[in-house]
Amino acid sequence: MPLAHRMAAEVVGTFWLVLGGCGSAVLAAAVPGLGIGFHGVALAFGLTVLTMAYAIGHVSGCHLNPAVTVGLTVARRFPAGEVGPYVVAQVIGAIAGAGVLYLIASSKAGFDVSAGFASNGFAEHSPGGYALGACFLTELVMTFAFLFVILGATDERAPKGLAPIAIGLCLTLIHLVSIPVTNTSVNPARSTGPALFAGGWAVAQLWMFWIAPIVGAALAGIVYPLVAGGRAAHGRATATHASAT
Amino acid sequence: MPLAHRMAAEVVGTFWLVLGGCGSAVLAAAVPGLGIGFHGVALAFGLTVLTMAYAIGHVSGCHLNPAVTVGLTVARRFPAGEVGPYVVAQVIGAIAGAGVLYLIASSKAGFDVSAGFASNGFAEHSPGGYALGACFLTELVMTFAFLFVILGATDERAPKGLAPIAIGLCLTLIHLVSIPVTNTSVNPARSTGPALFAGGWAVAQLWMFWIAPIVGAALAGIVYPLVAGGRAAHGRATATHASAT
Amino acid sequence: MPLAHRMAAEVVGTFWLVLGGCGSAVLAAAVPGLGIGFHGVALAFGLTVLTMAYAIGHVSGCHLNPAVTVGLTVARRFPAGEVGPYVVAQVIGAIAGAGVLYLIASSKAGFDVSAGFASNGFAEHSPGGYALGACFLTELVMTFAFLFVILGATDERAPKGLAPIAIGLCLTLIHLVSIPVTNTSVNPARSTGPALFAGGWAVAQLWMFWIAPIVGAALAGIVYPLVAGGRAAHGRATATHASAT
Amino acid sequence: MPLAHRMAAEVVGTFWLVLGGCGSAVLAAAVPGLGIGFHGVALAFGLTVLTMAYAIGHVSGCHLNPAVTVGLTVARRFPAGEVGPYVVAQVIGAIAGAGVLYLIASSKAGFDVSAGFASNGFAEHSPGGYALGACFLTELVMTFAFLFVILGATDERAPKGLAPIAIGLCLTLIHLVSIPVTNTSVNPARSTGPALFAGGWAVAQLWMFWIAPIVGAALAGIVYPLVAGGRAAHGRATATHASAT
Repeated sequence: MPLAHRMAAEVVGTFWLVLGGCGSAVLAAAVPGLGIGFHGVALAFGLTVLTMAYAIGHVSGCHLNPAVTVGLTVARRFPAGEVGPYVVAQVIGAIAGAGVLYLIASSKAGFDVSAGFASNGFAEHSPGGYALGACFLTELVMTFAFLFVILGATDERAPKGLAPIAIGLCLTLIHLVSIPVTNTSVNPARSTGPALFAGGWAVAQLWMFWIAPIVGAALAGIVYPLVAGGRAAHGRATATHASAT
Repeated sequence: MPLAHRMAAEVVGTFWLVLGGCGSAVLAAAVPGLGIGFHGVALAFGLTVLTMAYAIGHVSGCHLNPAVTVGLTVARRFPAGEVGPYVVAQVIGAIAGAGVLYLIASSKAGFDVSAGFASNGFAEHSPGGYALGACFLTELVMTFAFLFVILGATDERAPKGLAPIAIGLCLTLIHLVSIPVTNTSVNPARSTGPALFAGGWAVAQLWMFWIAPIVGAALAGIVYPLVAGGRAAHGRATATHASAT
Repeated sequence: MPLAHRMAAEVVGTFWLVLGGCGSAVLAAAVPGLGIGFHGVALAFGLTVLTMAYAIGHVSGCHLNPAVTVGLTVARRFPAGEVGPYVVAQVIGAIAGAGVLYLIASSKAGFDVSAGFASNGFAEHSPGGYALGACFLTELVMTFAFLFVILGATDERAPKGLAPIAIGLCLTLIHLVSIPVTNTSVNPARSTGPALFAGGWAVAQLWMFWIAPIVGAALAGIVYPLVAGGRAAHGRATATHASAT
Repeated sequence: MPLAHRMAAEVVGTFWLVLGGCGSAVLAAAVPGLGIGFHGVALAFGLTVLTMAYAIGHVSGCHLNPAVTVGLTVARRFPAGEVGPYVVAQVIGAIAGAGVLYLIASSKAGFDVSAGFASNGFAEHSPGGYALGACFLTELVMTFAFLFVILGATDERAPKGLAPIAIGLCLTLIHLVSIPVTNTSVNPARSTGPALFAGGWAVAQLWMFWIAPIVGAALAGIVYPLVAGGRAAHGRATATHASAT
């Protein structure tokens, strides 16, 4: 599959991740009485990945996330030379998703993008007021577990065809735990899209949501092969099967 | 499979989509303290499609939605000559589903069908007060993504047998995001059933829920093959595997 | 597989359906602030079937429900001579499940079994006050759809191994719609277990939760083969694959 | 697969079960207005198992739970000589998961570990005030059903590759029912991790959450083979397929 096709798939997929996940948070989470709450937002984020993994897993592997691309590369499942193009595509898709969401959300009276727009934050911008260190640790550990599950579920010894369910619902699980801490990133592209619209603190705190997830993902890229045994380190070779988030 | 059988399957399936999806909204969403809220309604709509895709995917492809039928046709997965019969069957099923729901709901004291009856709306009839343009954009983009996932998950390179999960849960995701905007259609038949009972504004605004979803679906029918590569444009040839929503 | 083994499996499975489903309603639905509501109860009922269908589908077919056994028999998927033993096993399991639930629930101060104990009801005992006719129609139509999905998802042309997901989540969907109407039965055994403990009106109204589901199931046993075409009427012949709820 | 690898997998998996499950309870359940409640916690616990079963089922069988290891051993699916190492690994992982959760949670002003920290309890420490006997019965019966589903879903006659969904969602179901009773253990390692941090009553009541689940699991290890027939008693022989929770 030519790189241009795979990049286009990553753009569409990451667009959907941000529009669907952040969209559920901005538009539907806090509707009085009927709103979907953190539980619904957690489900929405996971389903963006589950649906796109079935839709474009066979095209690009469905990373949708720079941390995923880096983690797969460290685990020798993805070529280092293509990390750049993939990350560029993911960030473009994330910004486009945030842009469409902005067009929709801003049509409602009283909308204020600077209230957060589903951006990620720590310390005084952590939804529950968690400290910087705890937020960093949360993002690092959650992304570690996310990549560990991705690498395991796409291991050639795992059941075929079901990795999208495991990986999508892992992202749901991560949100069920950590929305109150950092609003949950585990994905630098997802953090970047809304932050560019929200501006201010959201941009100022963006550095952490690039560093912590990528460090956690890289650690999983080292640890999973050690746990699972040598042959597994290489997983499935084709883009189709190395499919991840 | 003769067309009459496939049309019968579309009638039953779309009946279930409207009775199950709109039924959860009318009967169960707003019960004080215990109601299922938008989250439960989103799950219900998705499960109508997931369950029927396993039940009649091998009969009619389980479209249940004129926009799906059009999108598959644009992508050359469905014969143009059968669009008419399919759409007729879907609208009949949707009206029947809304009719049974009316019989049930109207037996409760205080029921008022003109309060909406789960109809879709925009501007002053958008649940959250979103403007016409934002509502149109939402329906267009959500249906685009829905068809993109349908076309991808039923691509011959995607895992076999799991498309109903991806497609059903994609409809859940779409509802998690967009119920506050338009009450979520992405399906002209689903919009038509309840609107005929609610009358008034619901009928007057019906035009948008035919145009926006169909335009979005047709766009996906053009874009998915471009992203995924030429051979994929044709997907699986049999009705069983071209199964969609 | 000898009938005694299959009956034992039906006892255990129906025990789990009532303990898990009615248990979630009695113990967890209405806990202030944190309770699972109708949405959680709907999920619990569906998961009792999903889990047991994977656990004992290969033993008894996992009916867990007299209406399912009757519907499969009408569709010529199950031998008429074994309907009696299956129904007896299901009712025994349901009573045992309700009994264990009673032991647990009654240890809490203030527990009052006569408040309902998750029994099904209509008219003045409908949770939302729906009339008898609407309740009968609801149970009939919901069980019709349930059996239609069961017959379709276990059709030999449907994807293999995934019917438990379709069938379990169909029961979740049915509950999302109809708990406010009848507290949702679609299963005479499930209605009988708690009613024997609650007594009074719950027993007096039990007749409807035997008749309406069985009539709906039998109708589906006639209609599905007509819709899906002749060969499908016979589905898969072995107990393993004729697995249902 | 060498025992050291399998033990490492059990450490990581049980770490994730406690961090994800107890983490959702401590961090996200009770956030005012938007919190995930018992329903979200139930989903989180189940998804820790679902995700890890796909990630390490092919390494260690993904037990993550001393009761699971014992139940599989009684059913002759797991060698008795390895129960000790597995249980040690599970307890280490659980303590590590609780430790990371403590680091995160304690960074928030007002955090009080002695309030419970998601520990399990009975009688005056049962969330809903259920008596000791009812709590013991609940843990025993729930773990019995859990192992029954695990043994059935990994039976060689069950569909391949889907056991992680059945088993993970069975744990969700168990939580939907029993969080109000004991805060739900069915897993002695999961109980031990948080209790060591909470201290006091949580440690004093820990005995019950070792005894009741293990007794229930052992009973299932005896009963399942009797119900399902002799050959099934041995299930699948390899670690990969004997995969469980």
